[in-house]
Amino acid sequence: MAQRAIYPGSFDPPTFGHLDIAERASGLFDELIVAVGTNSDKQPFLSVAHRIESLTECMAGLKNVQVSSFDGLLVDFAEAQGCQVIVRGLRAVSDFEYEFRVAMANRRLRPGIETLFLMSRDEHSFLASSVVREVARLGGDTSSFVPPVVEAMVREASRARQAR
Amino acid sequence: MAQRAIYPGSFDPPTFGHLDIAERASGLFDELIVAVGTNSDKQPFLSVAHRIESLTECMAGLKNVQVSSFDGLLVDFAEAQGCQVIVRGLRAVSDFEYEFRVAMANRRLRPGIETLFLMSRDEHSFLASSVVREVARLGGDTSSFVPPVVEAMVREASRARQAR
Amino acid sequence: MAQRAIYPGSFDPPTFGHLDIAERASGLFDELIVAVGTNSDKQPFLSVAHRIESLTECMAGLKNVQVSSFDGLLVDFAEAQGCQVIVRGLRAVSDFEYEFRVAMANRRLRPGIETLFLMSRDEHSFLASSVVREVARLGGDTSSFVPPVVEAMVREASRARQAR
Amino acid sequence: MAQRAIYPGSFDPPTFGHLDIAERASGLFDELIVAVGTNSDKQPFLSVAHRIESLTECMAGLKNVQVSSFDGLLVDFAEAQGCQVIVRGLRAVSDFEYEFRVAMANRRLRPGIETLFLMSRDEHSFLASSVVREVARLGGDTSSFVPPVVEAMVREASRARQAR
Amino acid sequence: MAQRAIYPGSFDPPTFGHLDIAERASGLFDELIVAVGTNSDKQPFLSVAHRIESLTECMAGLKNVQVSSFDGLLVDFAEAQGCQVIVRGLRAVSDFEYEFRVAMANRRLRPGIETLFLMSRDEHSFLASSVVREVARLGGDTSSFVPPVVEAMVREASRARQAR
Amino acid sequence: MAQRAIYPGSFDPPTFGHLDIAERASGLFDELIVAVGTNSDKQPFLSVAHRIESLTECMAGLKNVQVSSFDGLLVDFAEAQGCQVIVRGLRAVSDFEYEFRVAMANRRLRPGIETLFLMSRDEHSFLASSVVREVARLGGDTSSFVPPVVEAMVREASRARQAR
Repeated sequence: MAQRAIYPGSFDPPTFGHLDIAERASGLFDELIVAVGTNSDKQPFLSVAHRIESLTECMAGLKNVQVSSFDGLLVDFAEAQGCQVIVRGLRAVSDFEYEFRVAMANRRLRPGIETLFLMSRDEHSFLASSVVREVARLGGDTSSFVPPVVEAMVREASRARQAR
Repeated sequence: MAQRAIYPGSFDPPTFGHLDIAERASGLFDELIVAVGTNSDKQPFLSVAHRIESLTECMAGLKNVQVSSFDGLLVDFAEAQGCQVIVRGLRAVSDFEYEFRVAMANRRLRPGIETLFLMSRDEHSFLASSVVREVARLGGDTSSFVPPVVEAMVREASRARQAR
Repeated sequence: MAQRAIYPGSFDPPTFGHLDIAERASGLFDELIVAVGTNSDKQPFLSVAHRIESLTECMAGLKNVQVSSFDGLLVDFAEAQGCQVIVRGLRAVSDFEYEFRVAMANRRLRPGIETLFLMSRDEHSFLASSVVREVARLGGDTSSFVPPVVEAMVREASRARQAR
Repeated sequence: MAQRAIYPGSFDPPTFGHLDIAERASGLFDELIVAVGTNSDKQPFLSVAHRIESLTECMAGLKNVQVSSFDGLLVDFAEAQGCQVIVRGLRAVSDFEYEFRVAMANRRLRPGIETLFLMSRDEHSFLASSVVREVARLGGDTSSFVPPVVEAMVREASRARQAR
Repeated sequence: MAQRAIYPGSFDPPTFGHLDIAERASGLFDELIVAVGTNSDKQPFLSVAHRIESLTECMAGLKNVQVSSFDGLLVDFAEAQGCQVIVRGLRAVSDFEYEFRVAMANRRLRPGIETLFLMSRDEHSFLASSVVREVARLGGDTSSFVPPVVEAMVREASRARQAR
Repeated sequence: MAQRAIYPGSFDPPTFGHLDIAERASGLFDELIVAVGTNSDKQPFLSVAHRIESLTECMAGLKNVQVSSFDGLLVDFAEAQGCQVIVRGLRAVSDFEYEFRVAMANRRLRPGIETLFLMSRDEHSFLASSVVREVARLGGDTSSFVPPVVEAMVREASRARQAR
């Protein structure tokens, strides 16, 4: 059975943790869509364009991965893309509860789509985009959290904010 | 001893989970006040009037339940209403911690008032108002999360937001 | 409505935390049965007789409380005693999960019986019978964990074990 | 890519929760092996033969599922069976931690094998084999936790224990 | 080895829990800096000046403690102050995860600086600045959460907000 | 102030996680005692002699560390050794709760002794002695969990068990 999976997230910014999940998921399914959710109420840190550009660059070596964005319900987008599987990474207890709430909702909305969880690698257990944003905001070095292409964007976004 | 209990919440919107807790609590106490807290700093999703109206309709069959609202400290309102017991539902670990912080504070403020927790029914373990608001915001179907009267209000509220 | 509640546990040994829950529960219901479960597979630390004796002495001032024991399913005993409500204390996350598993099972076995949870007082948040047993086993002073009558029994039980 | 997955467990006894995970996993992979681990130090409740027999009967309708047992390291068995994927169900926080410890160990032992987690259905959130064993031991009705074929075995196992 | 430690926080407002951690930490290290972080994006409840003033007054009896503020990365400030140790209090599960994320980030940013955690005293297990702010906002009495000097500031801050 | 700290544990067997905590703690205090608790009710996996021998070998490079064992209450041993500080590693939620129960008990038994927690390094977040014992029991390779000297002892212990 040819499996097409979707790995959704806000990726604001993408971290080494996200890239690890995407890479491992790409080895498990025939095709993987890394999908940037753009419909949050919150003001983003990186623009959608920057998030897509950096993810695309980071995923360049993985032939069965494509990067995309969506702005409605995830399950609608997944269905439209022919994905039966949603992939998410799990790090810690708070993730667990949030992820289960979302997975429960998605199952009620579209029972035929299944959510699969991958455990984050040990070294990414406590790595979160929110921490990266906070370090960047305070002028810290984010090179141990995100790949170089993202780091440059993060630095630029922080400077732009400061200037305002 | 004639027990009068209060079930406070923001109920924004009321979900099947809230209704279940209210119904079960109404079977345990002589009188139950379902009390909509209106003093949050946050901009509500449903108006207080809509929340009271929908709760009142949903509770219509329970003769010992009345729906009300309050805008100061919960323990002041509870005391003024002659309630010795606060009822809250518990779903998951994050609830647990938040609820315990609030219950601790309420006990210090008014030691004579006790907080009792009911466990959410299995099928509501991961059902949260925040998930309902998010699904509604994205145009999804909320009929498996909330009763029909609430669903109509939720749809209307989402449309009004979109229009802004 | 005259409410009869049951507060079950292994109480091996009873701690200040158990006594606090029992006392608070006795103020919420017309009658309260503190019920020592005797059917565990595990070798108990205190005998059932000692647990009942010490609980009875500690509860002596509460006129609407009686101490009892049971050895089958809790819900069967609760029903036989005319109790519609099971009371349990909650301290921490591990409690929470264990208690919810048991409450879920009890609800499926007897849907008409409701489990209510009381939050442990702050100073008992991390107090557990297992810790008391461990301290006693190593010859430590348990007077800050259990009332004097229990302390004497705990000391005696530890000595008897050592002698074996 | 033809995916072969393994769903390991002690299944002592199999519950509705296990069957749900197995059924959903069978829809996600080309082949699924439900594998009963037989090497625990603990005295089992149901014999391995009974666990295999009942799982086989329950899985009869799923053509791509086979039931098996193993008694060494899971990753050795998975590799010998040509499985790249281990499937596990997740219910609650304590599961989460235990499962992550095991998944971490399995990844270090065999980095090429990936563990995927499925979220338990709402109604199985607090259902555990240990609860079923306890209810059975006390003579309670386990029909809302396990399928009929398992229920009969559980009853028999409890009676045999009692007789000893 | 002469140890200099830093106890950072937003202390908005300082609670009895914060004071307890500071006092205990001051007994463990040669010098302790209680450092008010001023760089949050959020609108503070108490001004930095008020937070420093009240902490200074509360710490007056501890000769090896000084109160300070900082507005960049904590690890930069710690290093500039010659502190090898960051001290933090831990109360509950949600603290635990947040604190570990921050500690992980700080370790990656400055591997030579170590974070040490102290367990909050039982009676402060569920005491949080956010609860104090909420009680104050609703006109409640905060005297069981914060020392008198803080209470006066909290009352004043709430009145000023109301007036707006 | 010359600080003497104790790092107690069962170390059965010592893992890379234990060694990391010991090493980091040795950099924070003037002297560190790594203390093997020998009074557990449970049958140990490695003998106390083997645990002390391997810890001593692994700590050989750290001049301010000594390895010892104790068999009564930890706080009695700590006090006899002139230690004001107990050091423990924290990994996950279940650790957190267990550790807090023990720390609470130790504080009540000896208020002058303080427990400090160090966060486990990311790569040891899910590494537990129990997992090592289980892998060893099943004949797996434990070299990614424990240092070579421990691995040899673990292998020998597993063989001896098998032979029985």
